[in-house]
Amino acid sequence: MKFHYSPGSCALAVHIALEEAGAQYDAQRVHFDRQEQRSPEYLRLNPLGRVPVLETPDGVLTEVLAILAYVAAAYPRAALAPADAFGMARMMSFNSFLSSSVHVAYAHHTRGARWSDDPACQASMAAKVPANYVALFDMIEAGKLGEPWVMGQQYTVADPYLYVMTRWLERLDIDVNRFPRIAAHHRRMNERPAVQRALRAQGLAAA
Amino acid sequence: MKFHYSPGSCALAVHIALEEAGAQYDAQRVHFDRQEQRSPEYLRLNPLGRVPVLETPDGVLTEVLAILAYVAAAYPRAALAPADAFGMARMMSFNSFLSSSVHVAYAHHTRGARWSDDPACQASMAAKVPANYVALFDMIEAGKLGEPWVMGQQYTVADPYLYVMTRWLERLDIDVNRFPRIAAHHRRMNERPAVQRALRAQGLAAA
Repeated sequence: MKFHYSPGSCALAVHIALEEAGAQYDAQRVHFDRQEQRSPEYLRLNPLGRVPVLETPDGVLTEVLAILAYVAAAYPRAALAPADAFGMARMMSFNSFLSSSVHVAYAHHTRGARWSDDPACQASMAAKVPANYVALFDMIEAGKLGEPWVMGQQYTVADPYLYVMTRWLERLDIDVNRFPRIAAHHRRMNERPAVQRALRAQGLAAA
Repeated sequence: MKFHYSPGSCALAVHIALEEAGAQYDAQRVHFDRQEQRSPEYLRLNPLGRVPVLETPDGVLTEVLAILAYVAAAYPRAALAPADAFGMARMMSFNSFLSSSVHVAYAHHTRGARWSDDPACQASMAAKVPANYVALFDMIEAGKLGEPWVMGQQYTVADPYLYVMTRWLERLDIDVNRFPRIAAHHRRMNERPAVQRALRAQGLAAA
């Protein structure tokens, strides 16, 4: 399998999941600084020009949430997803909240040009991001997070995804300790060998 | 089961899926015009104050993509999702693209206040929505859509989700016939009895 990532992006969640699963794969960095995500070859893999992409023996997968579910299904011995229909749906619900609310909120910080061509409007969007991000993390802290892992006793692919979104707090100058349960989850994640291996492979420090 | 919806919203996809599955459920309209989605009772079900919500025997589910996957898993005889891991991931990828790119693009048309407090910026975002929505539908038309259904021969929960996003083209004054394959999919959907029942239950006309 071939895994395409940009360091520290949401693709880090997939990188961690692949390590947790004990998967065999080649990790290929997509250099956003060189606009490699806009190359014709890359756009054939993902017309949105985004990471992650996973090339599997059956075909190409895009969208972090779908790739995470695939890794969990392809490596059942790692037990990275709930086995029952409701548990699985609850995990997908959590991941969908991260992808279509939390990640989207963050994207208005640096990717405002997607939604407005006006620089003043992009600045206005960026200014609102920290408050929106905090409100969403308040919801996670108050109701969505289990212990010790997102889904409770079982460590699942929801955990690395939350881990990456939590890392982004720092980029917005938000102290993770404002959310004690999420901060404890983040510390537990930093201790996992698979997390450390993925960070190392992407040239990142634990944070 | 109790299903919470607002007419014509993305919850319509779930409504159709429930009808396709032959599920027993009570449909409960959430009156956005009366701000019912902001009531303390509703926010206990979904702190985001959005539809759809499905109350199941095992607990409450939010996020359309997760609810669609749950309906497919809970009614296996209806075969509303691929049986293999890669097929399932490909369907989740399509649905995630709809939820975190297509729906999010549309939301900047009417929900700009989520991302900026400045009315001029909200207008700037709204102005860019048709171009963004067309670009995303171009990607669906060019590469993501199977025939006769999203996933090919199998009708899945990706179909009602695309159906609802396609309905929204009209609200943006975009002619569906600009996308011939999507337009054909939309006509096929309008012919399905389950689609017609869900539209009728929400007081909507086929479009």
